[in-house]
Amino acid sequence: MQIDRSPLARPFPPLPPIAGVTLRIARAHYKTWDRCDLTFAELTEGTSVAGVFTRSACASSEVELGRAAVRQGRARALIVNAGNSNAFTGHRGREAVEAIMTQVSEALGCPREEVFVSSTGVIGVPLPIDKARAGIAAALAAKPCGWEDATLAIGTTDTFTKGAGAAAMVGGTQVQLAGIIKGSGMIAPDMATMLGYIFTDADVAPAFLQEALERANAATFSCITVDGDTSTSDTVMVFATGKAGNTRIESWDSPGADAFAAALEDVCRNLAHLVVRDGEGARKFISVRVSGAVSDPSARTIGLAIANSPLVKTAIAGEDANWGRVVMAVGKAGEPADRDRLSIAFGGIWTARNGVPVDRYDEAPVAAHLKGEDIEIAVDLGLGEGRATVWTCDLTHGYIAINADYRS
Amino acid sequence: MQIDRSPLARPFPPLPPIAGVTLRIARAHYKTWDRCDLTFAELTEGTSVAGVFTRSACASSEVELGRAAVRQGRARALIVNAGNSNAFTGHRGREAVEAIMTQVSEALGCPREEVFVSSTGVIGVPLPIDKARAGIAAALAAKPCGWEDATLAIGTTDTFTKGAGAAAMVGGTQVQLAGIIKGSGMIAPDMATMLGYIFTDADVAPAFLQEALERANAATFSCITVDGDTSTSDTVMVFATGKAGNTRIESWDSPGADAFAAALEDVCRNLAHLVVRDGEGARKFISVRVSGAVSDPSARTIGLAIANSPLVKTAIAGEDANWGRVVMAVGKAGEPADRDRLSIAFGGIWTARNGVPVDRYDEAPVAAHLKGEDIEIAVDLGLGEGRATVWTCDLTHGYIAINADYRS
Repeated sequence: MQIDRSPLARPFPPLPPIAGVTLRIARAHYKTWDRCDLTFAELTEGTSVAGVFTRSACASSEVELGRAAVRQGRARALIVNAGNSNAFTGHRGREAVEAIMTQVSEALGCPREEVFVSSTGVIGVPLPIDKARAGIAAALAAKPCGWEDATLAIGTTDTFTKGAGAAAMVGGTQVQLAGIIKGSGMIAPDMATMLGYIFTDADVAPAFLQEALERANAATFSCITVDGDTSTSDTVMVFATGKAGNTRIESWDSPGADAFAAALEDVCRNLAHLVVRDGEGARKFISVRVSGAVSDPSARTIGLAIANSPLVKTAIAGEDANWGRVVMAVGKAGEPADRDRLSIAFGGIWTARNGVPVDRYDEAPVAAHLKGEDIEIAVDLGLGEGRATVWTCDLTHGYIAINADYRS
Repeated sequence: MQIDRSPLARPFPPLPPIAGVTLRIARAHYKTWDRCDLTFAELTEGTSVAGVFTRSACASSEVELGRAAVRQGRARALIVNAGNSNAFTGHRGREAVEAIMTQVSEALGCPREEVFVSSTGVIGVPLPIDKARAGIAAALAAKPCGWEDATLAIGTTDTFTKGAGAAAMVGGTQVQLAGIIKGSGMIAPDMATMLGYIFTDADVAPAFLQEALERANAATFSCITVDGDTSTSDTVMVFATGKAGNTRIESWDSPGADAFAAALEDVCRNLAHLVVRDGEGARKFISVRVSGAVSDPSARTIGLAIANSPLVKTAIAGEDANWGRVVMAVGKAGEPADRDRLSIAFGGIWTARNGVPVDRYDEAPVAAHLKGEDIEIAVDLGLGEGRATVWTCDLTHGYIAINADYRS
């Protein structure tokens, strides 16, 4: 099935090269397609690594091995296979990942646990080791490529290439960040069929890098949802080569630590939004802002209940100011809420305050807002100071077409 | 919008009259439609009542008042308004319910708390008191009607009338049960836009009736889901007139208590299945059987994660044996699961056992099963003795059409 480019797509941005990172791509022929489906990022010696991974109880071997290896803090290579997720493939799947780690560590002369592998695609088919081996050999011999080519090679059902960059001043030295991501369906709060990689030339200690990534992830990737489904492969990693020559960031007290963390969070937020913009069948980008909850986590839970509600998402698809469905979603979230203190706005216009529709409610400006591409739903619980913003897309015929009409 | 009759519809069954119950319907004109939209069930003196209600934190005044009144255990009347749910209407909504209770209690000469009111329909518009008053006066003057007419009058977006009956022997006396229900969307594990009423001529003490209803509800209405959304109005009530003349059922030790409870659960299960069969856009009825979980509640949570997964539901709609999506849903459920012990079957045919696809897996019989109307998904966790069955429907273009294309 040909899937049209998302109407919410953004052009791939200009991203700076990152000193210490060399990208190469190759054809491993994981599927019967004529495209590059293996991406190889070689990283300079001494590169720090951090990662966050799916919480699925059925995670792939890639995720299990990556989660373990990231603890030692160093990376020399990242290999991404597209077309086969190698999830739910038992010991044969694990052997395939270990074979790739061995091959690459021998080629680069580095410890095996400094080689990170991701795979994305169909579940339940072991990654063919021969194809992986040949693909890696081809990648090692290939010429370096740019960010967009690498992004194309990690994609599967994506309808556009997604990247984001940022810069930060770290103690008088400018550092660069460049991030790429793939993902469009099976996107949920605990991350997604989402593989995201951020590269920076900053010199950052692994422990701080991990802390900064977890903090950024909580406010960005963990606040998006397309269909509430969680992939077995979700991974976001950061690689810091140290080539910028800044004074190493060791902790939040190091010069430039805040600036670097803010830039990292910016990149994560932009990448997360792009995944929502490529949500299967998406025609509208929806921001759900929750305030007045008893706590920030409670606000996030309520926001996700709204963002995951099929009835809310179809109402937005229909450009229907059906705030009753928002009430319903707040009510079902299982978090403290008081019907008679609840207020709801679309596009900054209150439709209901303190549990009743506003007097002389004029639907016209709300209807005009809903005709746009970027939709804002605000909910105030009136109970406390907790707040959160989550992002999602509408639920359309396109989602059904991609997931039901198309035989996997 | 004209919504077609569900292809999974069942004919309305023959239901016995229940001694002590008189049904009447009237036109309250809650919407600009030409149909009966007010149902009045008059109950003989001494009728026992039990009820279970939505857990929504934003429940309607009907639910709040009903939940409080059911504790005194007696009912003389039930009034159901269709077309306006009166939810999220603040004190004006509450006043409308209280006005109905007062009017009916004066007409019947009974305490106000023996009058139960339900409303279903659009959220956020106070129920018009004048229309309710006139509708009740008309109902009081109307001729008695049968079960199907009453079921038609409580319906809103339902595409067919839903009823179920049963009989049980209670200490040598046969008792009858007749149940009716409405609901098709906003159906979730904590019940639904679902109003269900079961009437019996059995003589049952209110405390036992409540216990039997809660037990039946846990295994039936709490195990269905259409879209994971929870209504602000969900209500299931049982009324026992005592006219059968059996020895009163006071506890589980009373003669016939088990038989009565089993009959009640049968009626609840049949009604629950009919709601799924009228799920918005449903073309397939899906049973999800989970075994081998660490506990029954854990099995139910996993079953609901599968049954609520848009990716599973669209795969079934597409008749696609995509068991990888079932793995995904198990993984995201947040319950104990071990990828390498997990087994999955469609229509009794194992597709994966102990974490890997079965050897020489033949998709043909699975594909044949998926072409049918009644789909079985079985998941064995291989961890313990916990089991549960939940029921849902597929997710189709019809759901989107009903909820997005149709402006509320």
